[in-house]
Amino acid sequence: MTYCVAIKLNAGLVFLSDSRTNAGLDQINTFRKMIVYEKADDRFMVLLSAGNLSISQSVREILQIEKLKDSKNDEGTTIWNATSMFDAARVLGAAIRRVHERDAASLQQSGVDFNVSLIFGGQIKGEGMRLFQVYSAGNFIEATPETPYFQIGESKYGKPVLDRVITPETPLDEAAKCALVSMDSTLKSNLSVGLPLDMVVYEVNQFQTNKVVCIDEQNPYFKMLHNSWGQKLREVFDSIEDPMWNGESTTVPLMSQSSRNMPLKKISTPEDKLI
Amino acid sequence: MTYCVAIKLNAGLVFLSDSRTNAGLDQINTFRKMIVYEKADDRFMVLLSAGNLSISQSVREILQIEKLKDSKNDEGTTIWNATSMFDAARVLGAAIRRVHERDAASLQQSGVDFNVSLIFGGQIKGEGMRLFQVYSAGNFIEATPETPYFQIGESKYGKPVLDRVITPETPLDEAAKCALVSMDSTLKSNLSVGLPLDMVVYEVNQFQTNKVVCIDEQNPYFKMLHNSWGQKLREVFDSIEDPMWNGESTTVPLMSQSSRNMPLKKISTPEDKLI
Repeated sequence: MTYCVAIKLNAGLVFLSDSRTNAGLDQINTFRKMIVYEKADDRFMVLLSAGNLSISQSVREILQIEKLKDSKNDEGTTIWNATSMFDAARVLGAAIRRVHERDAASLQQSGVDFNVSLIFGGQIKGEGMRLFQVYSAGNFIEATPETPYFQIGESKYGKPVLDRVITPETPLDEAAKCALVSMDSTLKSNLSVGLPLDMVVYEVNQFQTNKVVCIDEQNPYFKMLHNSWGQKLREVFDSIEDPMWNGESTTVPLMSQSSRNMPLKKISTPEDKLI
Repeated sequence: MTYCVAIKLNAGLVFLSDSRTNAGLDQINTFRKMIVYEKADDRFMVLLSAGNLSISQSVREILQIEKLKDSKNDEGTTIWNATSMFDAARVLGAAIRRVHERDAASLQQSGVDFNVSLIFGGQIKGEGMRLFQVYSAGNFIEATPETPYFQIGESKYGKPVLDRVITPETPLDEAAKCALVSMDSTLKSNLSVGLPLDMVVYEVNQFQTNKVVCIDEQNPYFKMLHNSWGQKLREVFDSIEDPMWNGESTTVPLMSQSSRNMPLKKISTPEDKLI
């Protein structure tokens, strides 16, 4: 399993991925799931991958050389000459379809689904930043102000904090912190997501970044965040009063007149019928 | 979808279930998923169900009359005369198998899995409290001090807080609060889990309870908990410092010497090879 998250803000982009790959619990390895494509002062793109590792590695290999031709005399669009991130995402889709042509039938014969999912985002000079989620069929969707982030892999544990915090106006470093909390919750609950983490933070219109970090067990910030979050969450939990039942005096009773309108199904003797 | 959770503590048992059932997003209904079996001063049992509603309703119907015979002359064990919760859980398993015999083949012809999962717990006079998770095949597992709770249905969003708080020593009302926080996180993230909630809190050796409540949108305690939890979680998030990058002074740098040992895969020009 995998957990990757990418966030598109007005101020820039945040990418975060774990590095655990498993084929069963007894075959766990470390594979990095993030790759950066950079051409100075022209384009900056990041690819995150989840799903079958053989497929995602093939896609990454082919993406380097894939040419998308829309007509016969077309010279071909590549990720390096595409004039928009939309076209670059189409090239990625074409690379996935090429791997599908090559491998899908054989995989199916072995009972393996053609399963890969990707996040692809960045900026090409001449337009704003864009962020896409790309599916196994090579189709894709784009992040919007209403849904400014994408997750792939084991996404559920880390979703609540993203929903509570992220808007397009969130500052870049705060969004990076949010992505790390989201990852921390996922690491805690799912053994198949593991350190080290790769994080890239990109500032709008820079076409490069020096905010690239590999986070392992020794990283002081991640250690601090992990410990603080766990401890303070517990303090918040303790600060909320326990439920009081009827007969006890409280301003926020758990049992109230209005909530007794739907009595629970209760069978009190063997002879009772289901009600 | 559904979310149910049950917790076994030294002090008693907590059961909580939502009430949303859906067959596609355009067919959402309210069905209660909790049922209480009670025989004064003799036994107190609670059943929670998730999965295919037609199966779980059939199981509940049959459970009332199911007799488990271990030998030819055996009078038959029912949930009303079983001398242990283990035997009562076996009766429940037998009820599931009876529904399986009746319906599984037809369901399979329609491409529907025989999918039901149940939590069954309580106390029968003569032994301590016990809590079981029962599967579609009628087999079951029992909660232990190391794993004192079970969840069925949409379990991921609500798992982290249970893991952080619950131990066998947790007081009963605190565990009830924890179950409600767990449910609140699930409600926030999954549309197919919905109010009202049913909650039962059982105190050890009582063989009855008056702590039974149906919680709807108007419940003052649940409203308070929902608002406080969301707001305080955000305060905790804000109280943790944002990551600082290299060059800036901080005691907990995100980028440190030790974390730069594994450089990220970076392709800087079209000619670069994948490294």
